[in-house]
Amino acid sequence: MTGAGHSRNGSAQSGTLYCVGLGPGDPELMTVKSARILSSAKIVAYFHKRGKRGNARTIADGMFKSDTLELPMEYPITTEAPVESAKYQNALTAFYDDKALDLANRLDKGHDIIVLCEGDPFFYGSFMHLYLRLRTTHNVKVVPGVTGMSGSWTNSGHPITYGDDVMSVLPGTLPEDLLVQRMGQCDAAVIMKIGRHMAKVRRALTTAGLVDRAIYVERGTMVDEIIMPLADKETDKAPYFSMILVPGQGRRL
Amino acid sequence: MTGAGHSRNGSAQSGTLYCVGLGPGDPELMTVKSARILSSAKIVAYFHKRGKRGNARTIADGMFKSDTLELPMEYPITTEAPVESAKYQNALTAFYDDKALDLANRLDKGHDIIVLCEGDPFFYGSFMHLYLRLRTTHNVKVVPGVTGMSGSWTNSGHPITYGDDVMSVLPGTLPEDLLVQRMGQCDAAVIMKIGRHMAKVRRALTTAGLVDRAIYVERGTMVDEIIMPLADKETDKAPYFSMILVPGQGRRL
Repeated sequence: MTGAGHSRNGSAQSGTLYCVGLGPGDPELMTVKSARILSSAKIVAYFHKRGKRGNARTIADGMFKSDTLELPMEYPITTEAPVESAKYQNALTAFYDDKALDLANRLDKGHDIIVLCEGDPFFYGSFMHLYLRLRTTHNVKVVPGVTGMSGSWTNSGHPITYGDDVMSVLPGTLPEDLLVQRMGQCDAAVIMKIGRHMAKVRRALTTAGLVDRAIYVERGTMVDEIIMPLADKETDKAPYFSMILVPGQGRRL
Repeated sequence: MTGAGHSRNGSAQSGTLYCVGLGPGDPELMTVKSARILSSAKIVAYFHKRGKRGNARTIADGMFKSDTLELPMEYPITTEAPVESAKYQNALTAFYDDKALDLANRLDKGHDIIVLCEGDPFFYGSFMHLYLRLRTTHNVKVVPGVTGMSGSWTNSGHPITYGDDVMSVLPGTLPEDLLVQRMGQCDAAVIMKIGRHMAKVRRALTTAGLVDRAIYVERGTMVDEIIMPLADKETDKAPYFSMILVPGQGRRL
């Protein structure tokens, strides 16, 4: 199982689908390997929301040649319907089916394709939906990246785990009572996907007794990053890609 | 709070202490920023166990100039005494005090120093013990890295989290009943620091009903990595830097 790449179609002509993790936002925090693969890219694909360029494409700016073919993959739906709804799920399933078919056709013509992914692709990344569709039929190689949470806790100046600390990553989308319960079962916590769940997450942190240790991070490592104690954040307005860190208090030596 | 670096001594002559995350093992998985900082290093320091070169030093091989001054920092004690014992804790506290003093003296002479750290420094890294001693008196800058767990789940071919999965990182050093309980409170799990705790961790995974989903990884992304279903691993012999992954089973689209 060396490398997240498994050639199973036996075709020597078929191209390779790469997914390169680009790290948390600062372009210098991408890996040497991702930078190398990008520098010789002929086709680059990336997800983005309607009317936005997408974080991944922004991070990769200037990292590939100007004559590289770009394949923007626009999400068909974002906040118009709840994630749990059939409407959302059907739209996304059809979207990933369609994009996987398009990429497969290009791979079958012998072209390599590089999919850009902010952070680390196998950690809550959209690419996994293409990966699950293509991994058994095509050559797929994934390059890990620095996660958004690593970039955020580093720039906050607070190590996240000490000694035997248990760290949990909690999506802010979870119900409040479940958030409270899970917050009580760990020593360090990272709450992701804050967005419109900010007020709920703040209440959960208060109930769990963690609110005074909580640090709010928005666009960590990007040029316009915001890092502050959660207690100092006056509004509950936050973008989807913000997060809250609760550093552990384990063994100091 | 931009950058985990806080100049507080006001001395223009004092050097900067960098800690560069080097990633999980494959040297190409270090960040462009860490590689850049290393390429002009004049003094490089790193932790290692007695009689061993240390993973960090090995990953950085060939990344800095041959006339760079190397400062190996040898742990005074590793497995001779339990981590919980006063003997262990006193020895390590004195060790970090001593090394912090040595680095401070060199910084005060105006030298920059680069501390090498495998993985991501603020995620269970030894550097945090130096950081806590020096951050208020000296310029300290930390560069995040790809974690060992990111490198491992990528090379296993299994995305670790989907949708709203809760992921917990559990040190294998925890008591068995606590491991079982925490394993029941998450959707995806990473068990670190396996080593001599392997038999206990395997029992806990079995009790928690997770053993059939568990993947064993040893030296992930290094040239001699081993990745296999835990069920296929016949012995309970494992190095300290092995881990077990339990991928989540959240929303597929």
